[in-house]
Amino acid sequence: MLRTLYFSPGKPIRKDIPPQEFPKLVRDRRGLLWVSLINESIETCLPILQGFGFHPLAIDDALQETHVPKLDDWGNYLYIVLNYLVIEENGTDWETRTEELDIFLGPNYIVSLHDSPIPAIEETWAACDRDPRTLQDGADHLLYKIADNIVTSYMPTVEKIDAAIDQIEDEVFDHPSPRTLEKLFALKRLLQAMRRILLPQREVMNKLARDDYRVVDPKDRIFFRDIYDHLVRLHDLNESLRDLVGGALDSYLSVVNNRMNDIMKTLTIITTLFMPLTFVTGFFGMNFFAANPPWEEWTSPLIFYGTLVLILLAPFFMYLWMRRRTWV
Amino acid sequence: MLRTLYFSPGKPIRKDIPPQEFPKLVRDRRGLLWVSLINESIETCLPILQGFGFHPLAIDDALQETHVPKLDDWGNYLYIVLNYLVIEENGTDWETRTEELDIFLGPNYIVSLHDSPIPAIEETWAACDRDPRTLQDGADHLLYKIADNIVTSYMPTVEKIDAAIDQIEDEVFDHPSPRTLEKLFALKRLLQAMRRILLPQREVMNKLARDDYRVVDPKDRIFFRDIYDHLVRLHDLNESLRDLVGGALDSYLSVVNNRMNDIMKTLTIITTLFMPLTFVTGFFGMNFFAANPPWEEWTSPLIFYGTLVLILLAPFFMYLWMRRRTWV
Amino acid sequence: MLRTLYFSPGKPIRKDIPPQEFPKLVRDRRGLLWVSLINESIETCLPILQGFGFHPLAIDDALQETHVPKLDDWGNYLYIVLNYLVIEENGTDWETRTEELDIFLGPNYIVSLHDSPIPAIEETWAACDRDPRTLQDGADHLLYKIADNIVTSYMPTVEKIDAAIDQIEDEVFDHPSPRTLEKLFALKRLLQAMRRILLPQREVMNKLARDDYRVVDPKDRIFFRDIYDHLVRLHDLNESLRDLVGGALDSYLSVVNNRMNDIMKTLTIITTLFMPLTFVTGFFGMNFFAANPPWEEWTSPLIFYGTLVLILLAPFFMYLWMRRRTWV
Amino acid sequence: MLRTLYFSPGKPIRKDIPPQEFPKLVRDRRGLLWVSLINESIETCLPILQGFGFHPLAIDDALQETHVPKLDDWGNYLYIVLNYLVIEENGTDWETRTEELDIFLGPNYIVSLHDSPIPAIEETWAACDRDPRTLQDGADHLLYKIADNIVTSYMPTVEKIDAAIDQIEDEVFDHPSPRTLEKLFALKRLLQAMRRILLPQREVMNKLARDDYRVVDPKDRIFFRDIYDHLVRLHDLNESLRDLVGGALDSYLSVVNNRMNDIMKTLTIITTLFMPLTFVTGFFGMNFFAANPPWEEWTSPLIFYGTLVLILLAPFFMYLWMRRRTWV
Amino acid sequence: MLRTLYFSPGKPIRKDIPPQEFPKLVRDRRGLLWVSLINESIETCLPILQGFGFHPLAIDDALQETHVPKLDDWGNYLYIVLNYLVIEENGTDWETRTEELDIFLGPNYIVSLHDSPIPAIEETWAACDRDPRTLQDGADHLLYKIADNIVTSYMPTVEKIDAAIDQIEDEVFDHPSPRTLEKLFALKRLLQAMRRILLPQREVMNKLARDDYRVVDPKDRIFFRDIYDHLVRLHDLNESLRDLVGGALDSYLSVVNNRMNDIMKTLTIITTLFMPLTFVTGFFGMNFFAANPPWEEWTSPLIFYGTLVLILLAPFFMYLWMRRRTWV
Repeated sequence: MLRTLYFSPGKPIRKDIPPQEFPKLVRDRRGLLWVSLINESIETCLPILQGFGFHPLAIDDALQETHVPKLDDWGNYLYIVLNYLVIEENGTDWETRTEELDIFLGPNYIVSLHDSPIPAIEETWAACDRDPRTLQDGADHLLYKIADNIVTSYMPTVEKIDAAIDQIEDEVFDHPSPRTLEKLFALKRLLQAMRRILLPQREVMNKLARDDYRVVDPKDRIFFRDIYDHLVRLHDLNESLRDLVGGALDSYLSVVNNRMNDIMKTLTIITTLFMPLTFVTGFFGMNFFAANPPWEEWTSPLIFYGTLVLILLAPFFMYLWMRRRTWV
Repeated sequence: MLRTLYFSPGKPIRKDIPPQEFPKLVRDRRGLLWVSLINESIETCLPILQGFGFHPLAIDDALQETHVPKLDDWGNYLYIVLNYLVIEENGTDWETRTEELDIFLGPNYIVSLHDSPIPAIEETWAACDRDPRTLQDGADHLLYKIADNIVTSYMPTVEKIDAAIDQIEDEVFDHPSPRTLEKLFALKRLLQAMRRILLPQREVMNKLARDDYRVVDPKDRIFFRDIYDHLVRLHDLNESLRDLVGGALDSYLSVVNNRMNDIMKTLTIITTLFMPLTFVTGFFGMNFFAANPPWEEWTSPLIFYGTLVLILLAPFFMYLWMRRRTWV
Repeated sequence: MLRTLYFSPGKPIRKDIPPQEFPKLVRDRRGLLWVSLINESIETCLPILQGFGFHPLAIDDALQETHVPKLDDWGNYLYIVLNYLVIEENGTDWETRTEELDIFLGPNYIVSLHDSPIPAIEETWAACDRDPRTLQDGADHLLYKIADNIVTSYMPTVEKIDAAIDQIEDEVFDHPSPRTLEKLFALKRLLQAMRRILLPQREVMNKLARDDYRVVDPKDRIFFRDIYDHLVRLHDLNESLRDLVGGALDSYLSVVNNRMNDIMKTLTIITTLFMPLTFVTGFFGMNFFAANPPWEEWTSPLIFYGTLVLILLAPFFMYLWMRRRTWV
Repeated sequence: MLRTLYFSPGKPIRKDIPPQEFPKLVRDRRGLLWVSLINESIETCLPILQGFGFHPLAIDDALQETHVPKLDDWGNYLYIVLNYLVIEENGTDWETRTEELDIFLGPNYIVSLHDSPIPAIEETWAACDRDPRTLQDGADHLLYKIADNIVTSYMPTVEKIDAAIDQIEDEVFDHPSPRTLEKLFALKRLLQAMRRILLPQREVMNKLARDDYRVVDPKDRIFFRDIYDHLVRLHDLNESLRDLVGGALDSYLSVVNNRMNDIMKTLTIITTLFMPLTFVTGFFGMNFFAANPPWEEWTSPLIFYGTLVLILLAPFFMYLWMRRRTWV
Repeated sequence: MLRTLYFSPGKPIRKDIPPQEFPKLVRDRRGLLWVSLINESIETCLPILQGFGFHPLAIDDALQETHVPKLDDWGNYLYIVLNYLVIEENGTDWETRTEELDIFLGPNYIVSLHDSPIPAIEETWAACDRDPRTLQDGADHLLYKIADNIVTSYMPTVEKIDAAIDQIEDEVFDHPSPRTLEKLFALKRLLQAMRRILLPQREVMNKLARDDYRVVDPKDRIFFRDIYDHLVRLHDLNESLRDLVGGALDSYLSVVNNRMNDIMKTLTIITTLFMPLTFVTGFFGMNFFAANPPWEEWTSPLIFYGTLVLILLAPFFMYLWMRRRTWV
């Protein structure tokens, strides 16, 4: 989908401008043009981008996918790649996708390319559409608003993850199952993926806040600094959450291991108690004493009662012995 | 809660100044104004902060929460975020919360914002109230006192943790339980959380001690350097404590693993000893020898005594065999 | 194999030029000479390289193998080592080899040396052969094309690995076997090997994109910057894949461990249930009660039915007990 | 304990100088005053340190404890913190304590503060007392001698640890016990503690060797460089020892794990062999065949010999089966 | 052993020059003197080194041992420490020792000190002895040759380790034993030791290649750069080998763990199968049914055949049940 917004001071917002007009509009330094390309084919995008006079390498980068966030300074314009994290929940499962947002920032225009609708973009678009004054601060300020919306949109995700960890932590102690472990691994992977896109985006914002670019008004740098600080905070939260997941994993392993130890201890206690007793019963079950006269005294009441006492005392002495070995 | 302190050389301390007067007081460069906002609503804070002429982004940061410690230089004033670690013990459990303290430091005023009473702030406030001379060294010196109190307040926590580790180390060897492990994990998490707020605060103090700010008297930098050194020391203690927790975890695992090995060894020894003996008793319990004449010699005294000797010698040879395999 | 390409503006491409002519051709600054040495003996290579006047140390490096990617600036020419990853699949097994490509880049010539045919080189060669205009942008642009082909050729490998991980992840949950683990270790090793050659090559491209070399046209630096960005992206993908492999390993271990726990639990339950019951049957199998009159009441119907009830109730109580210990 | 040494060229050493004289002596630039305070109360130290005109913050630091090694340049004097590792052996146990040594280095005086006698200090003191020429090279050279003695004193500790590791490595293979593991953990902790004090001291020496201080003669920097090199070497030895401890831990775990596997294998072999045999004997022990006529042929010689052969062949076939599974 | 070589252009090589002549020879800037001290006592070395006018600290360093590789610039001469790895194989065991080589490099002399004959030194000595022209490029070129020989001598070691890993990898899958693990740990330690001496030597060569020293001809820096590259390559190989060892360790653990699981599974299957069956035989072995008339029908043919069917069907149903739990 190709859509456009054109703001010129004192005039109403223009929309649906044909691509042929772009070069002309861009030449008027007082206006502001936003061209948004959503999931458009390369055939459509290429002539438009070439019309702006972008470098072939920058166009190549914009039309290919899976770039890491970066900022290329081409003098008259900046080529910026940002990432957007799409998190889809199905039940308790997390499916995450990283979407790429390519932006060309010129002195009085922005060209944005992405493959699926991004709420952060839609919001900014709607705000511009509603109130043309949003556009009067220039292209770099518009970029700030888009980037700010993107960064702000990470927050609900972080909160969802926080809640998920809380819930799993209870699960770990109440009824740990392999399913719990799966969830923890999934959260760990999600936080890793998140961290991997936060760091380079932080770097992009840092550049915008610190370096001298022809298309960024020095007075607006403070806004990018603000986004940078938000990304630092998000990164910090991410670290905390990863610590929590790590702690929950540790707890899970210790709970499961402890249960295993408990099970093995039971096995050992039962075996250690009943094996000797079974041997005793087996001993007196041998045919030596059954019918042969010489062994009759082995089945006398005295020996029987002795055996009985032995059998009854065994668990008691065993308990004492285990006590001494600090097993119970 | 909104409260204020105003010091002017040669005059008594003024309190409960209405917000409208702030701009006027701030204009008098010889005075010192401290505005403290504790858990105030955004509606109350916003006009006060705007009255000082702070940048909207700085005000936004101050009114939102969960920032990491940082220092923003806005020329006429500094915006500083510090963290305060609240540790609540319930029984042997540790509940930690990180509180945020926002400070605006101007040439002759300080505005502090936080959500719950912070002892370090209360102490400084009381000292200022008691002795106006505390305020005569200027706003940056007041900031030093607040920061110093905050950093000093970490020390008792560190000592508590130290004592807790000592106690757990004994527990590990005397009666290790999953509860011990839980405590160790909790301490580990606490030390991680502590480290995460120590490092950026160290950076803030380093900046105050090294960089050139309009509102910090170069002569006072040495004081921030001193706090920086305290934070270095705290970080070092934190590292040592984390090593100790790591060591206790290692010990726990080795104690528990050793006990498990002990248990499995017992299981194996008992099984290995009694299984063959039970087989022997089972062998002579078969009906072949019970009543059928041709097998009567199998239940003769000779064989019985041989079996008896076998049964009695078995544990002895087994001990020798285990000895050779270095099991016992 | 020694092969040559010589491009001179306005003339047809010349091939199979005898080595003696090289110095003469190189002196003509408008032409472009590409000498490709594939798996040639040192005896053949040495005089050719010496003919170009390369430094003995550079020649030594080129004739020896197993260098890490690097770039040496010798003033009139650059000596560059790139790596090429050859991945051979036999069935589900991965056999990887790192091939070395040595390149001498002069102002109007390129000398490339490698041991086996490299598709990236062959492609470029064919393109030059087909369309002489490919050569008209100079030697540094030719280097760009070769390097770009090499870097592009990593992509299918990355995709193969991605597909392999997907398949193994299913295997982990459906029928994990030691074979699965072997595959995961192999993938891990492959990704490690890949990472080890990506990082220094990135550094080489970074140098070409940033530093000032006599034989690289400053206008062409942007192309090497582009390859640098591709390598950054590949490195990022590599990191993601390593995370996935790490996650699959974690899952494998947890699945296998869980199965083991399951097995041990079964063992314990069976043993704990049948050991006491076997003892009971053994008790009533002793000869005391067999034929001796005084013990006849021990085999009375009442005791038998009591024993029977005991045997039948045992599993039920055991289930309750395990329930309480959260084993089942 | 307060003690003093005063050297003046051509005059005998003076001792036990009253603190009131310090300022006068320090004014004579040709002399050298060493004031040593060992375990003195704050009340005694404070006026002496104030008499030298030290900054209150530096005095605070000197009177408090548990600082990390550092160097503060106060212009006319340096404030230096060094650490001293006290290792107490009781039996095979290691008890380590880190002692702090505070030094004020002026142009012609040294003030040293510590809590317990430090051999490195005592040695230097005795050498100065014996031979006044030791003092003629100035205060910075005296500092070099103290620091050199401290660093040299680490060496015997390193050698003791080396010997201890050697002994434990033998123990690991001959008779590994939980005690062995405890020793290894203790050594690991000791090496960690050592490393933590080596690194910042190295930094202090590096500063003395490289930076320009008013009270350090540039010609003497080479001596601090020498101590720096010793600390580099000690750090390197520390790393090697930590590798050795890590290796011994690995070996311990593998030895213990192997023994455990051995034990479990025995358990399994015994159980797998005797369970079926016990079943066979149990089968022929059932009452079906005991006295009831129709089953008499089940106890015939043929079946008995068959059973006997089965019992005797079982271990043989089991061995073959285990062989095939590479268990034995 | 003290030995000397003296080269003067146009004259034959002189040997066995008495130490008294050294200063005179060194004064002649066209000659080149090499003094080699092998395992000489401090008493012999001290006057010789002092005769060259070396700084006492440098002499101290040279006469003590266990230094890490380093380079000290003393203006008129460099003091260089290199390491040499001696690997002694006894059987399949690796015994490694790190030997130290101290070199003083002057404008026209080299003094080398080491404790045992180093092949790299012997080779260079023999080459100089054979062909005096080796010496005509100056002292720094001689240093290059020595260092080059030392670095080259690591290569066979690396190849030996490579072969050893190959062999162990086969062993891991064919017949893993604790011995295999020991070998892997030994290789790991060896590679760690190697890495620890490669890194600082690389730094020394980097300094020689980059920094400006009075005694190193700028034209010769390229040679040290070459050694630096070799060390980079060796370091890279070392990393690869460590990855391989790590992979082999992983494989070992997984093979052993898998075998253990196999063993435990067998134990559980056998126990789970025969425990109930043994209970059944025990049940019918009780005396209730032996001689007492009321229970005779319990030993009737019907019940016997039922029991027999139960016993025969048990393994079959058990197989199905295990199948469902994916155990087999």
